[in-house]
Amino acid sequence: MPFIARHDCVMFDGREIFYYDSVERERTAVDGREFEERPKPAELRLDLLTNEWIAVASHRQKRAFLPPKELCPLCPTTGPLATEIADKDFEVVVFENRSPSFAQPDPGWHMAENSGVETEIHQAAGRCEVVVFSDQHEGSFGNLPLAQMRTVMEAWRDRTREISKLDYVEQVFVFENRGEEVGVTLNHPHGQIYAYPFITPRTARMLRVAQEYFDKHGRPLLTDIIDREINDEVRVITQNEHWIAYIPFAARYPYEIHVAPKKFVPDLAALSQEAADAFPEIAKEVLLRLDGIFGIAMAYIAAWHQAPVRTGRDALGLHWQITSIRRAPGKLKYLAGSESAMGAFIMDLAPEQAAQAMRDVNL
Amino acid sequence: MPFIARHDCVMFDGREIFYYDSVERERTAVDGREFEERPKPAELRLDLLTNEWIAVASHRQKRAFLPPKELCPLCPTTGPLATEIADKDFEVVVFENRSPSFAQPDPGWHMAENSGVETEIHQAAGRCEVVVFSDQHEGSFGNLPLAQMRTVMEAWRDRTREISKLDYVEQVFVFENRGEEVGVTLNHPHGQIYAYPFITPRTARMLRVAQEYFDKHGRPLLTDIIDREINDEVRVITQNEHWIAYIPFAARYPYEIHVAPKKFVPDLAALSQEAADAFPEIAKEVLLRLDGIFGIAMAYIAAWHQAPVRTGRDALGLHWQITSIRRAPGKLKYLAGSESAMGAFIMDLAPEQAAQAMRDVNL
Repeated sequence: MPFIARHDCVMFDGREIFYYDSVERERTAVDGREFEERPKPAELRLDLLTNEWIAVASHRQKRAFLPPKELCPLCPTTGPLATEIADKDFEVVVFENRSPSFAQPDPGWHMAENSGVETEIHQAAGRCEVVVFSDQHEGSFGNLPLAQMRTVMEAWRDRTREISKLDYVEQVFVFENRGEEVGVTLNHPHGQIYAYPFITPRTARMLRVAQEYFDKHGRPLLTDIIDREINDEVRVITQNEHWIAYIPFAARYPYEIHVAPKKFVPDLAALSQEAADAFPEIAKEVLLRLDGIFGIAMAYIAAWHQAPVRTGRDALGLHWQITSIRRAPGKLKYLAGSESAMGAFIMDLAPEQAAQAMRDVNL
Repeated sequence: MPFIARHDCVMFDGREIFYYDSVERERTAVDGREFEERPKPAELRLDLLTNEWIAVASHRQKRAFLPPKELCPLCPTTGPLATEIADKDFEVVVFENRSPSFAQPDPGWHMAENSGVETEIHQAAGRCEVVVFSDQHEGSFGNLPLAQMRTVMEAWRDRTREISKLDYVEQVFVFENRGEEVGVTLNHPHGQIYAYPFITPRTARMLRVAQEYFDKHGRPLLTDIIDREINDEVRVITQNEHWIAYIPFAARYPYEIHVAPKKFVPDLAALSQEAADAFPEIAKEVLLRLDGIFGIAMAYIAAWHQAPVRTGRDALGLHWQITSIRRAPGKLKYLAGSESAMGAFIMDLAPEQAAQAMRDVNL
């Protein structure tokens, strides 16, 4: 069981920053930048056609776009430029997003209901955090040393636990976007956490299906899916004592990988220490195999599906979903009419072929 | 009311092709290519986590990619190369897709049910058609002459009517993808029709919401949304006697435009002739304004939302949804973690600003 220390500090504009260290050390560096008012949270608007909430964050247009290393806001502060991280080195750092889509609401805020055909605008309560995987500007999650990946995992677990306590948060979403093809604007290895004041459409859908299954069979759906994948074999990429990685039977993307704990848990915080410690090894293997398919760094979205904070915690199981839109070297899968407008996915590659390709990569 | 004649012909491999003409003329050109077996329809697989159907069409990888004019399969056949269209000219042509994701099933086919954790593969019954807007290789839907757009509209209406008769089709989706940014592989102006053997996730969602609204208020939701937009004014782009174009209050994309008939109808086939005839003018204005925002041809997905064939026809209203992922010159909106994995959209531009920008374009 790794020793992980957390140091809580405050940034120049009042945002919180957390240093996660696997060895005890001081974290006293001060963020000396001049105070600046933090932007208001975004707006929440209800799409009446679907009864889904849309966040409108019009201040986000000004974000930095792929800055070079010397201007990277996620590097440690080692020279005259004060970055987001005041210390001169770090292992893993988490801090509140400077221009968050979801942020702490005004006192008295409560989540709105669908009030019919009204033009109402609400505060986008919640929380957005940046998880910096390393103080090295180059690299990626899959290329971190295993010990470093374990520190990231402990940071994810701690943040899930802490953010779940906020009474205006219904769901904690831990994820990583990698590659310019999915809109990444900072190359420094990092992920994000979005904490929403509602249950997102995808999670609401999965929750309804999982709850029905649980009520009917008395077992979590994900547990039975994992049993099927182990039984069918053809879509399994790799497994260890605690985790299994497979291409789902009905994948939506040319490379879509699910990595799930064999023992059902609702979220990262609920993982046993043994399961948490066994994650880096399988995560590294999966990500290296993914990069090995075409011999290039694959753009992907890596999403931790967790049960909502207050509901469905017996039914909806934690799993890590990696989706890549690359279907061949030089060819991306675009979400066109059927996928984008209708939510009906057409896959160009059979999941069994994708799993075979993943297994065939020489590591 | 325009005269539109339809000539039904057969292609070299048995596929149907329809010529739509606004003046009566012969269509006797024969597709003389050597017979070739048509590919089997794709597979349907159930995603157990969401209870949604995924089509697996692994034969689609081989599609032509942006062929030059002299190799374009959607141009008329004027030289030695036999294209998909045998005649030497045409107005509007519709034909069955050569490598369809959904196609006529074997006799006895019926749509499968969710049968629990089974690894079952089903035939992707349905129909995929290509709608060629013009015999000119260059151009776009918005730049067609109004009379030509009217012929396209009549073709869409006729195909919706005809395909709705197929007993294995539950939903007819008429759409256009424009631009390489949304994966278009043929530049020749064209759209597509996908007819699904199930109700797509997005339509199912809209149908549930619209049905609840109808049951509660006795009016279609879309009718009341249009009233709100007319009342609020700020998001309206333009209107005429029969149609209104607006940016929806909770748009998901930097430029998302809804064009809806003022009088509720479930689908294109149900439009009055007057409403159908009034569409080209507003469609052209909207598309020219969209291209005018940045002075470039905007990539977009233009999707006709129609009620399913057999249900919800009092509740779910026809509307044309145009979404563009361009948020600035040189900047695209990517579907990253929140949108792609959670279905929770973050918008960078306020809908009122987008509507203002559309209205401000000088035509």
